Amino acid sequence: MRVAILGTGLIGASIGMRLRQAAGKSKVEVVGYDRYADVARQAQKLGAVDVVMHTPQHAIEGADLIILATPLLAIRKIMEEIAPVLGPNAIITDTGSTKAAVLRWADELLPAHAGFVGGHPMAGKTQTGPRAADAGLFEKARWIVVPTTRSSERAINGVLWLADTVGAESMFMDAAEHDAYVAAISHMPMIAATAMFDMERSSDAWPELSLLAAGGFRDTTRLTGTDPAMAFDIAVTNREHTVHWLNRYIGALIDMRELLLAPEQEEALFRRIAEASFEYHEFVNGKVGRQQAASPEMDAASIMSFQDFMAGSWLREKLSDIVGNAEERVAENERQKRLRRDV
Amino acid sequence: MRVAILGTGLIGASIGMRLRQAAGKSKVEVVGYDRYADVARQAQKLGAVDVVMHTPQHAIEGADLIILATPLLAIRKIMEEIAPVLGPNAIITDTGSTKAAVLRWADELLPAHAGFVGGHPMAGKTQTGPRAADAGLFEKARWIVVPTTRSSERAINGVLWLADTVGAESMFMDAAEHDAYVAAISHMPMIAATAMFDMERSSDAWPELSLLAAGGFRDTTRLTGTDPAMAFDIAVTNREHTVHWLNRYIGALIDMRELLLAPEQEEALFRRIAEASFEYHEFVNGKVGRQQAASPEMDAASIMSFQDFMAGSWLREKLSDIVGNAEERVAENERQKRLRRDV
Repeated sequence: MRVAILGTGLIGASIGMRLRQAAGKSKVEVVGYDRYADVARQAQKLGAVDVVMHTPQHAIEGADLIILATPLLAIRKIMEEIAPVLGPNAIITDTGSTKAAVLRWADELLPAHAGFVGGHPMAGKTQTGPRAADAGLFEKARWIVVPTTRSSERAINGVLWLADTVGAESMFMDAAEHDAYVAAISHMPMIAATAMFDMERSSDAWPELSLLAAGGFRDTTRLTGTDPAMAFDIAVTNREHTVHWLNRYIGALIDMRELLLAPEQEEALFRRIAEASFEYHEFVNGKVGRQQAASPEMDAASIMSFQDFMAGSWLREKLSDIVGNAEERVAENERQKRLRRDV
Repeated sequence: MRVAILGTGLIGASIGMRLRQAAGKSKVEVVGYDRYADVARQAQKLGAVDVVMHTPQHAIEGADLIILATPLLAIRKIMEEIAPVLGPNAIITDTGSTKAAVLRWADELLPAHAGFVGGHPMAGKTQTGPRAADAGLFEKARWIVVPTTRSSERAINGVLWLADTVGAESMFMDAAEHDAYVAAISHMPMIAATAMFDMERSSDAWPELSLLAAGGFRDTTRLTGTDPAMAFDIAVTNREHTVHWLNRYIGALIDMRELLLAPEQEEALFRRIAEASFEYHEFVNGKVGRQQAASPEMDAASIMSFQDFMAGSWLREKLSDIVGNAEERVAENERQKRLRRDV
């Protein structure tokens, strides 16, 4: 079997490495191409591809499976380049972070027989390039598979084979659904992280702030460090969904601000904070997907509702403290306000 | 020397462990008290305290240095409890995350001779309790020291000794300055993370979103997992500064949304994303504080402006692509809009 990987950066090279490790079983030969010849050569040195070709057209010659792993906006250009020489039997897929735009380009640019199947492995790093590649990158990650009405059964199976061979779990979605979901949990958080970091760095107090910033700030803003070309391509190909979730997030921040500003709402504030914290730990510990008792992700016994948790823990005591001292703190708040007015 | 630690959770126990390791040199005896007797016993088992006392009054008997390391709102109560028995020579400090409220309580509740000095070690974990304690927790962290007009030179030196002995670097600040800074880089990001996680988790799509969420989302929302009592205490004792920075952040998100919504502004969007990404990596690699060429934090040679970086890198090529293809993408955008209108 011959696999052509066009774009041998982090994702392309990680796929190549893993496929070549599996080569013993199924005889996979990996051909690599990258717009930057040194990137392709590096991928080859690191064992991610067997052969390097210098044009995309040469790279796909005789390939059974073609993987477009370039930056998102470059997928369009590379589709134009390979369309004239695309054989009738090659399966073609991609690894781009948004899907509606990619499927539209495939529809416009590729021959009807191509039967493109969209793909998106939900794994990555903020480092880029083949040097950051890792054969284990996709282990247990979700690999979203987005067929079109033109995709053949054979092409879909080819992409499922790919996901399985690199250790990922496939999930079918349509393009609009995919783009909405990733906007929510990936693209909007990336834009929000960038806005937060940029706002802090532009502040006059940044010299002091940067000295005080600890791991919490670094983690909250980590997605700012995403490869800027990738971040930009995502933003412009998934504009509307990202803006939709940005609006919801801005709304959530405004709600939170109202709660913060109302000293008489302290109990509600504590409940909100405590429930989110509880659910966050549950999430990180594997409470994901539909929460059936028999979910394979988590033991039934370890699933506990926030209400149960609250009732049986020290949180209850904290809540009584809050309720008990509420009057005192509202009074202190009033007094502080008066003091400031006097000054 | 006798040190009393009131509150033997993560911070108190980590201080105790490190002080006892340094004991060989300076003969430090650590006395521990916690509202929960089992927490104090656990700290003792883990080597964080020599002796456990069952009331705060007993714990501070004969202490040269008293460290209030309880949750923030509990500091007030413990000040009331120890005030009547506070000796004339004991140095007293705290480790709370906000300072104006703590200094106000000290002023109201402690005897005039106490000479309280506020403190805030800028280190932590989302895990809590003595089990998460670590003698190396404060290594190279900043330890903010907030003296009052009543603090004696001797008391300030005592707190500087404490910071130094646990491996931290002291920084002097006044309370308002401290509270504004930590609101910016710690409290507001924590509230923002909670708002984001809560908003996503409340969405009907959460079963799907939680399956797709990868490391980026977990990191962006990690501060949601902060101990809820600590998060609540911070929010209510640093309300105004947190709301101020929340407002600035909401403003930054609205700006970013405008940029996203304007296809003709793509160059500006890319520059914003690329500069933030560049500066984030510089920050993580140690470009902090006043950026003098001779900054001890970073080699002069490795300090590069974003403009220099942009001019000499592949980002320039990406920028030409964007400028070159802008018209094409604006046209595609228009066409998409028309298509949707037709449907």
